[in-house]
Amino acid sequence: MWPALQNDCFLRACLRQSTPHTPIWLMRQAGRYLPEYNATRTKAGGSFMALATSPEHATEVTLQPLERYPLDAAILFSDILTVPDAMGLGLSFGQGEGPRFAHPVRDEAAVQALQVPDLDKLRYVFDAVTSIRRALQGRVPLIGFSGSPWTLASYMVEGAGTDDYRRIKTMLYSRPDLLHRILDVNAQAVSSYLNAQIDAGAQAVMIFDSWGGVLADGAFQRFSLDYTRRVVAGLQREKDGQRVPVIVFTKGGGPWLEEIAACGADVVGVDWTVNLGAARQRVGAQVALQGNLDPTILFAPPEAIAREGVAVLDSFGRPQRADGGWDGHIFNLGHGISQFTPPEHVSVLVEAVHAHSRRLRAPA
Amino acid sequence: MWPALQNDCFLRACLRQSTPHTPIWLMRQAGRYLPEYNATRTKAGGSFMALATSPEHATEVTLQPLERYPLDAAILFSDILTVPDAMGLGLSFGQGEGPRFAHPVRDEAAVQALQVPDLDKLRYVFDAVTSIRRALQGRVPLIGFSGSPWTLASYMVEGAGTDDYRRIKTMLYSRPDLLHRILDVNAQAVSSYLNAQIDAGAQAVMIFDSWGGVLADGAFQRFSLDYTRRVVAGLQREKDGQRVPVIVFTKGGGPWLEEIAACGADVVGVDWTVNLGAARQRVGAQVALQGNLDPTILFAPPEAIAREGVAVLDSFGRPQRADGGWDGHIFNLGHGISQFTPPEHVSVLVEAVHAHSRRLRAPA
Repeated sequence: MWPALQNDCFLRACLRQSTPHTPIWLMRQAGRYLPEYNATRTKAGGSFMALATSPEHATEVTLQPLERYPLDAAILFSDILTVPDAMGLGLSFGQGEGPRFAHPVRDEAAVQALQVPDLDKLRYVFDAVTSIRRALQGRVPLIGFSGSPWTLASYMVEGAGTDDYRRIKTMLYSRPDLLHRILDVNAQAVSSYLNAQIDAGAQAVMIFDSWGGVLADGAFQRFSLDYTRRVVAGLQREKDGQRVPVIVFTKGGGPWLEEIAACGADVVGVDWTVNLGAARQRVGAQVALQGNLDPTILFAPPEAIAREGVAVLDSFGRPQRADGGWDGHIFNLGHGISQFTPPEHVSVLVEAVHAHSRRLRAPA
Repeated sequence: MWPALQNDCFLRACLRQSTPHTPIWLMRQAGRYLPEYNATRTKAGGSFMALATSPEHATEVTLQPLERYPLDAAILFSDILTVPDAMGLGLSFGQGEGPRFAHPVRDEAAVQALQVPDLDKLRYVFDAVTSIRRALQGRVPLIGFSGSPWTLASYMVEGAGTDDYRRIKTMLYSRPDLLHRILDVNAQAVSSYLNAQIDAGAQAVMIFDSWGGVLADGAFQRFSLDYTRRVVAGLQREKDGQRVPVIVFTKGGGPWLEEIAACGADVVGVDWTVNLGAARQRVGAQVALQGNLDPTILFAPPEAIAREGVAVLDSFGRPQRADGGWDGHIFNLGHGISQFTPPEHVSVLVEAVHAHSRRLRAPA
């Protein structure tokens, strides 16, 4: 049905199998730092959602970074908040602003009215997945994704980005029953949504728990990780005879690395505050690690970018273990790439990661 | 010279000595959530700096929370950015905005022109310290403070709060020599500034590394912690025959707890992402711990506030060790109290912490 995969480095690293180099892709790799992305967006009418809801445009922009850089994976062009939009909350993106919901979920009636959305409302996403997978022609694997139940709930209750998470944390500590109901609906919806992406052609899926790190110890486990675990438990893990790796990324999740690594995912994403070598010691026998360059390093001169990329690889170390097995590392940023990144700086990073990681694998 | 101290719980806990209850104070305890604070601020002309630069007003607002609540320490009313203001950067606070510098430090010439400020420009701070210490009449100890060299540098380079720290991180990775020069000046200035606060009457000092947690592992150690360590090394640690405890608080510093605990401070502040019991296991034999309730819990109903306060105390556990010694815990929030906090909720927390921590100390 699908063309054979030519570069399986990413999938193999996710599953802690040997690879000739460390695979690299970048969160938000199809985005505003690329002039060709901005050109497509203008052509589509200028709005993010106009791009994301058109399988044709989504395919075009998803493939743009692969034309420029020898990246080892593609990621669906979409947003983490498509699911609550399909629940009827009315997602929009103002010019230069973050996402906003026209109908935030703030009272008991709104919480009780929430339902797992009809997946048909997300048909544009699945169509985009299929279209991208076809267009890739097996060059690299395609990653699908969603926000985590907690991260979706944060936006659904706050209605937009926030500095202090006052509304949702007030709900958490005052009416935990309401928040648990939202999270329960979200967990069911996210599982179904990711399974449909896998059916449509996604070869791996990633759960972005972008706001898990703002929770207190204890609250994180009950209101974020427990529901991420439910999502993971609900996923199909094999498709067309291939394992479908699951990546969980909690920004600011360093304090809870062991607990996150036990949630059932194949890969745990870590941000740049985490020492990758220490993280490998802690959980590298259970999961592959993805990360973790500070994206602002891409503003530095080329030699600094190469040096810092090498430092991340060296921190993880040779992926071959003494027992002959392999630990898994997928190179990435610790957050989405900034719109202010000079595109030629990304070339420097990808080249440095590929070259140095090949050297790292050479016999000592 | 000074009246005898009546409640030394806070100082004793900082030094890991026995106390009848767990001392509590709250970051930003004198602030906008108190109607009496807003009244004084209006009387002073409405601006934060008008309050902070008047020893009389600063004394009045510092004592206000102590009139309402049986807190175990007072903290100087001031801002973390007074030192760069004295360097000539022109600090201001817009209505409803964070701090802003009129003359940010962005090029080599500006960096080279930086100098340790004449401490006489900060006389208003030392006068406030002396005035507050007198007004306290020995009720509780007075804490002085400053921003850390890295946190000051972030504001000095960015010119204001920032989402992505793009300017300072670009400098860090492109021209580390310039940033090291800023940090060197800042470290010298902060040491002198805190020593002068101690001379003026501060009985403990706290270094706020509010933005240390945005740095990558490796960069944090070189650009934040190394300079905090220099500040600590430059401090006088005894005054009038009393040990002057030093508290270091790095928001988001959980990943580096052991390294921070080795910087020479007596107390390490931790935010709410940290499990206090685990932190005690890791560093409780070297330093006391301060923290770590999520300040948004103060929006919850009274019973939830009491429950979560008790949970923080229980996470630390009985301060008495099996060997007969004591570990130190100072109860605090993991960040400044929000301006939207209902004042009566603070009473609930203080009462719960005092009552439960007395019970915790009872013989088993």
